[in-house]
Amino acid sequence: MPRNAFYAQSGGVTAVINASAAGVIETARTYPQTIGKVYAGRNGIIGALTEDLIDTSLESDADIAALRHTPSGAFGSCRYKLKGLDENRAEYERLIEVFKAHDIGYFFYNGGGDSQDTSHKVSQLGEAMGYPITCIGIPKTVDNDLPITDNCPGFGSVAKYVAVSMREAGYDVASMALTSTKVFIMEVMGRHAGWIAAAGGLAANDATRAPHMIVFPEIPLVQDPFIAKVKEHVDAHGFCAIVVSEGARDENGAFLSETGLRDSFGHAQLGGVAPMLANLVKDKLGYKYHWAVADYLQRAARHIASATDVAQAYAVGKAAVEMALAGKNALMPTIVRTSDSPYAWEIGAAHLAEVANVEKMMPREFITDDGFGITDPCRRYLQPLIQGEDYPPFVNGLPDYVQLKNAPVAKRLSTPFTVK
Amino acid sequence: MPRNAFYAQSGGVTAVINASAAGVIETARTYPQTIGKVYAGRNGIIGALTEDLIDTSLESDADIAALRHTPSGAFGSCRYKLKGLDENRAEYERLIEVFKAHDIGYFFYNGGGDSQDTSHKVSQLGEAMGYPITCIGIPKTVDNDLPITDNCPGFGSVAKYVAVSMREAGYDVASMALTSTKVFIMEVMGRHAGWIAAAGGLAANDATRAPHMIVFPEIPLVQDPFIAKVKEHVDAHGFCAIVVSEGARDENGAFLSETGLRDSFGHAQLGGVAPMLANLVKDKLGYKYHWAVADYLQRAARHIASATDVAQAYAVGKAAVEMALAGKNALMPTIVRTSDSPYAWEIGAAHLAEVANVEKMMPREFITDDGFGITDPCRRYLQPLIQGEDYPPFVNGLPDYVQLKNAPVAKRLSTPFTVK
Repeated sequence: MPRNAFYAQSGGVTAVINASAAGVIETARTYPQTIGKVYAGRNGIIGALTEDLIDTSLESDADIAALRHTPSGAFGSCRYKLKGLDENRAEYERLIEVFKAHDIGYFFYNGGGDSQDTSHKVSQLGEAMGYPITCIGIPKTVDNDLPITDNCPGFGSVAKYVAVSMREAGYDVASMALTSTKVFIMEVMGRHAGWIAAAGGLAANDATRAPHMIVFPEIPLVQDPFIAKVKEHVDAHGFCAIVVSEGARDENGAFLSETGLRDSFGHAQLGGVAPMLANLVKDKLGYKYHWAVADYLQRAARHIASATDVAQAYAVGKAAVEMALAGKNALMPTIVRTSDSPYAWEIGAAHLAEVANVEKMMPREFITDDGFGITDPCRRYLQPLIQGEDYPPFVNGLPDYVQLKNAPVAKRLSTPFTVK
Repeated sequence: MPRNAFYAQSGGVTAVINASAAGVIETARTYPQTIGKVYAGRNGIIGALTEDLIDTSLESDADIAALRHTPSGAFGSCRYKLKGLDENRAEYERLIEVFKAHDIGYFFYNGGGDSQDTSHKVSQLGEAMGYPITCIGIPKTVDNDLPITDNCPGFGSVAKYVAVSMREAGYDVASMALTSTKVFIMEVMGRHAGWIAAAGGLAANDATRAPHMIVFPEIPLVQDPFIAKVKEHVDAHGFCAIVVSEGARDENGAFLSETGLRDSFGHAQLGGVAPMLANLVKDKLGYKYHWAVADYLQRAARHIASATDVAQAYAVGKAAVEMALAGKNALMPTIVRTSDSPYAWEIGAAHLAEVANVEKMMPREFITDDGFGITDPCRRYLQPLIQGEDYPPFVNGLPDYVQLKNAPVAKRLSTPFTVK
């Protein structure tokens, strides 16, 4: 008898997490003898806890295929981390109760580090609570900080967006610098690791050399050398384009976005890192500046997604189902790089126990000695991840993203559950 | 005997001003009996004043064709407005001196309102200073505020970028709103007119309804009704996505970006309008927020340019040369809309005297009664302008934008000229 599967999206969504969903659902549909229906959690794991399940079998093949080109989380995602089994046993008991009620035998959880930790805990439920469930984590994070896998689905598309945007802005500023903006600062995501900021470095070419500088979270920002370097670039090239990570820190390890600039009365200025640095440059050097904060635009930009990223996101979804069907448990499919040039990759597997709660930081050797650039090994690593375009269809000048019906599965439990 | 042509780019650059340059140069190249070389001003009109001319005849046909897909100003632009003939006669005399020295008989000036004013003044030089020159203005401005022409090349691509970005961010926020961001604010360009902000309204569809609100420069922002409306949308839809123009003003007509929020000590907060409004929402309603400021990314985003815009930008460049060849003077090619649906347009002509120093504002009937949305007539106007995609070629995952050789024309004048 086939058993049903549960799939949920977790944490910050990306341009390609729905491609993983398509990989899961399309693959599951080809094995009706083994996998019954795929139920998605509405708003992630909260949907499981509250028995708010979505019946994906009611979605057409065309709509599921369209997930491949639709950004965001089609079933809703959430920022909610399950506590340890000892700390909140009730949550796990509730999960089992819901899984039992809906005959769920497969658990696919699509997310970053925290989610893989949850996947790992759920994979242990079978033994701890006597409920047989196959559990496979599916990697996703724009932060690119999961261990073991060469890279994380979601990252390549943000990387491409950031590199494309910086190249374009670099051309813009270069053509105006004589009488207008001398310093342009673009703030990008990546609170703990500089992977996304590093990707901005791919934009540089001989035409503009933008970005001239990158401010990484890994390298504390020291005001004087920073300002000196900005001036050096303006003197040499007529302008200076800078990528700054939202996670940039000062010498004491405090986030610049939190310390901020002080005004003349000593009060912190609210706002992002980019305006903060722009004001600093203005104060010290007097240059005209502009700044941009891409924020969600960067992780939602499916219109300029990396074809490599889309393919890998789909592949890990597909592999997750295949692993489950092969009787594997407590694994996460990984991307294994088999060659840099020409770039080649295949799917591997990591044990969830080894993935959970491990953050992959950017190696110091990926950052130039002065702390403001990327090295050739970093380029070699990043370059393939932004390869290829995979444009969504457009209607009336706008991307034609799918909206699923997201019909609920009838509840079978009489007990409600309140998520705190 | 053929005479040479002068072409210059002026003011803020766009994703498609180089397409106009391609239209000028490619068309001029087909009339070698009439037009000799096309000299471009390095950094706009400053290049003419300082006799810093670029010999575009040294650029290959392929490179000139590549201008069509390259954003920014390939020859450099500037923010520099010529004064009136009476106020600074020396500048005009210098222009004539440079034009004479290089046998320039055609003047093509590619820019917004100020530039058309300059074009108009130069067109009068023939009579005022006894130097025969044919002068044609070429429209360009992301602000869409030139009169007579139905729309301005450059605007359609920013409009498309803003609408695409808001649609994507809308999907993102919608999928996370239950446990995360409730209010998302995207700041866009348009200091005087709300055309670009209005274009954000095209993003809305049934899936997310984002943007739920638009803050126009034309409609003073009154705090209480604004906050009430945000709450209304969060209550109804789970989140509220907002497009705000950088030119948004308060009830006294002051730019919000300049008045800013006051901190508890009464000091103004630096930064853009988006963070300011986000902080206001946080203060009054306590919602978690995110904000983005697209800044130059929006006007440089050639990767997602509107095919309609690219075609029109090229067409006005081509038409400018054809008008000059037909013996016309003191004109600017315009876009004439001949049908809304199916959209059809053709090239018309406006007298520079009627274009100079006239700003086209957005009609009040394009904004909904409550001041926070766009009306159906506005949609009908905007919709065709973002139609079609015109992707640049990509190499190594990045747009392959051309960098011209930009070789200087040998100077013939012994007198330098200092631009103040």
